[in-house]
Amino acid sequence: MKTASSSGSPGPAGALSVAEVRLTPILIADPPLLNTQGVHQPYTPRLIIEVVTSDGTIGVGETYGDTRYLDLAAPLAKALPGHPVSDLNGLFTLAEQVCGAPAEVSDSVDVGGLRGVQTADKLRLSVISGFEVACLDALGKATGLPVHALLGGKVRDAVDYSAYLFYRYAEHPQGQGESDGWGAALDPAGVVAQARRFADRYGFGSFKLKGGVFPPEQEIAAIRALAAAFPGRPLRLDPNGAWSVETSLAVARELADVLEYLEDPASTTERMAQVAAGTQVPLATNMCVTTVPEIEEAFRRGAVQVVLSDHHYWGGLRRTQQLAAICRAFGVGLSMHSNTHLGISLAAMTHVAATVPNLDYACDSHYPWQTEDVITERHVFTGGALTVSDRPGLGVELDREALRALHRRWLDDDGSMRERDDAAAMRKADPDWRTPQVPRW
Amino acid sequence: MKTASSSGSPGPAGALSVAEVRLTPILIADPPLLNTQGVHQPYTPRLIIEVVTSDGTIGVGETYGDTRYLDLAAPLAKALPGHPVSDLNGLFTLAEQVCGAPAEVSDSVDVGGLRGVQTADKLRLSVISGFEVACLDALGKATGLPVHALLGGKVRDAVDYSAYLFYRYAEHPQGQGESDGWGAALDPAGVVAQARRFADRYGFGSFKLKGGVFPPEQEIAAIRALAAAFPGRPLRLDPNGAWSVETSLAVARELADVLEYLEDPASTTERMAQVAAGTQVPLATNMCVTTVPEIEEAFRRGAVQVVLSDHHYWGGLRRTQQLAAICRAFGVGLSMHSNTHLGISLAAMTHVAATVPNLDYACDSHYPWQTEDVITERHVFTGGALTVSDRPGLGVELDREALRALHRRWLDDDGSMRERDDAAAMRKADPDWRTPQVPRW
Repeated sequence: MKTASSSGSPGPAGALSVAEVRLTPILIADPPLLNTQGVHQPYTPRLIIEVVTSDGTIGVGETYGDTRYLDLAAPLAKALPGHPVSDLNGLFTLAEQVCGAPAEVSDSVDVGGLRGVQTADKLRLSVISGFEVACLDALGKATGLPVHALLGGKVRDAVDYSAYLFYRYAEHPQGQGESDGWGAALDPAGVVAQARRFADRYGFGSFKLKGGVFPPEQEIAAIRALAAAFPGRPLRLDPNGAWSVETSLAVARELADVLEYLEDPASTTERMAQVAAGTQVPLATNMCVTTVPEIEEAFRRGAVQVVLSDHHYWGGLRRTQQLAAICRAFGVGLSMHSNTHLGISLAAMTHVAATVPNLDYACDSHYPWQTEDVITERHVFTGGALTVSDRPGLGVELDREALRALHRRWLDDDGSMRERDDAAAMRKADPDWRTPQVPRW
Repeated sequence: MKTASSSGSPGPAGALSVAEVRLTPILIADPPLLNTQGVHQPYTPRLIIEVVTSDGTIGVGETYGDTRYLDLAAPLAKALPGHPVSDLNGLFTLAEQVCGAPAEVSDSVDVGGLRGVQTADKLRLSVISGFEVACLDALGKATGLPVHALLGGKVRDAVDYSAYLFYRYAEHPQGQGESDGWGAALDPAGVVAQARRFADRYGFGSFKLKGGVFPPEQEIAAIRALAAAFPGRPLRLDPNGAWSVETSLAVARELADVLEYLEDPASTTERMAQVAAGTQVPLATNMCVTTVPEIEEAFRRGAVQVVLSDHHYWGGLRRTQQLAAICRAFGVGLSMHSNTHLGISLAAMTHVAATVPNLDYACDSHYPWQTEDVITERHVFTGGALTVSDRPGLGVELDREALRALHRRWLDDDGSMRERDDAAAMRKADPDWRTPQVPRW
């Protein structure tokens, strides 16, 4: 990254450079949500990034907080001071220079997981995304511009979200963690009750069920129950690549009349292409297309009809806009993926979503499941949507007391929660549990 | 376009809206440069756009100035006041609402010309591009940020340009217009002399010859002469689609060892795909891929290996960045096209070029041929490159006296120069000249 050598008479924002970066790893409560890998831990790590500029403006960002992300964030935080806060492209150059590849991951290692093959590139982009959002927040505050304006301007005043339904236990195995009072959802009736509560409370108009937990016929029954309870509402099912091509096609046949799309029924672009060739149900993905090099083959083969963007995966808000442009050019739909996150990331998602003309579907968000946050005012879904903030930056304010408490939890942790491992969490309930091989069914 | 309803306490830039838009059509001197359509007119129309914000900041933009562009710019200029100057995405929405299609053009009309099929969409995007640049300039001045910073930050401090060689007359037919002292270039020796002058004066390291003027064997000889005079330098030849597939392949065979790329040898994606299938010489285009809907087929068929972006064509600097992202994802190279333009557009080109990681080739620019400008300090190529400005906005200042004089020329024109028509200009030299049918050879 080159430091801008200011000539002429730049105003305050033009001269703004990064003075300090603060990294605060935290552990946040997470309910016992089930997926094909296992169950969410009682606490999950996140990293809060504060970029402090030369005039004292503070921008905030949020990303994954497992050690392998922290290991990449630390050198980037150290190298960033002195660089213009506006130099978002420079973050990528700088990260390549200083981050290196984390020790425990190489490009060829498939650690399974829910985001496809894990590579050093993906980890680095996820870290950069948190820095990019923090820089945009700071730049917005310094210039008085909301982040959406720094991204070219909102094309809508509110962003629709979808209810993100999970099979879940009432409490964590062995009674760990916090209780959230939502109760269990382990069958069609439980899923419908959960959906009803989401719809009543937040007004969500579409529903996604995280699948891959029970044999497909049970999940088909759950979707059928949702379709009966909410006639005409868009429904999605996401087994995180747990099914074979044959099973995927069978489920698609069974649910063709009610599915808005089927999300990652099978893992790998190859299998997705085979599924796509055999069904009219659109296939969505946040597993086989998660980085730029994966786009071309998937698009050429027609393996996916909808890409679920995620600014954490793609390296920030501007890269998400670029992904949207690519999808637009190739007639591929766009929606938005979510992993466990707090209000900073939800604000960032909402800003970028507001600027993307071809956001064809309501976005996913885990946010309603999160009982804790690090911002002073929680986001509130109304009519299933969030209003796009016009305040400078992201429009959120850091709750320093909450941040301290959640960081304290991270400091006090014996190490068992600092790496999210849904399979290990599952072993608390079932000691014989192993990460399932795919296809599982 | 929605007007941002500011809540919270936005700073000055956040509250900035457009107060006034000034449109100034001008006629600028242009030398008698030859292409396959004919010859450049003695004067060519451009449109200078000034966006004045609520705090009195003025941003400048530049685009085509023919009547069909003016007809679209007028309603957009009228509708823009009141909108946030940062709402670049909103320009597209607003233009769709207020501009309509120009009377003399419909999507199905091929008016020939040098930029492929002319459509209402392309005209509108070209108009929007001038407004987008003016808004970015104003926003940059208001925030103290250079335009490259508003686009995510420069990844290079200087942008390379290529010498743009033309066959040309010494003077315009019938002695019209201004004399520029460059003399004629109508054979290999003349082309080499022109290249030498460009190289000596500006340090250009690569050369592009506008072809399609003489039979291919003469243009092959000119490229061979350039290769002999400048061994190892990248060379390009651009006949603007004048050749058949067979001729294109024959030229590619003859020049394979010296061409950096062959630009639009044949017109239409179909013919380009046939040429590409038969040669290893990369094919570049600013004719068959000039809008988003043209990308998919061309990329899927491998019809082009390099897209020559042009922010006037693609709807501005941010759309140019999106095009670059699409090219990156599909392994297609990127370079930059130029039509006759002044220093405002050159500044805009340089800013966006500075932010694009995959700008794989030196950019084209007609600028060295322009003896007039509307900015106070002309850009100077050094070592074939322009330094990227770090001043707020574009970093250029409007020369109001020059603007007035060039507008006066437009006002005084009897109508003969207000529409650029290279074929009509050629008829001054050759009354029987008609726009050639393609393939011409």
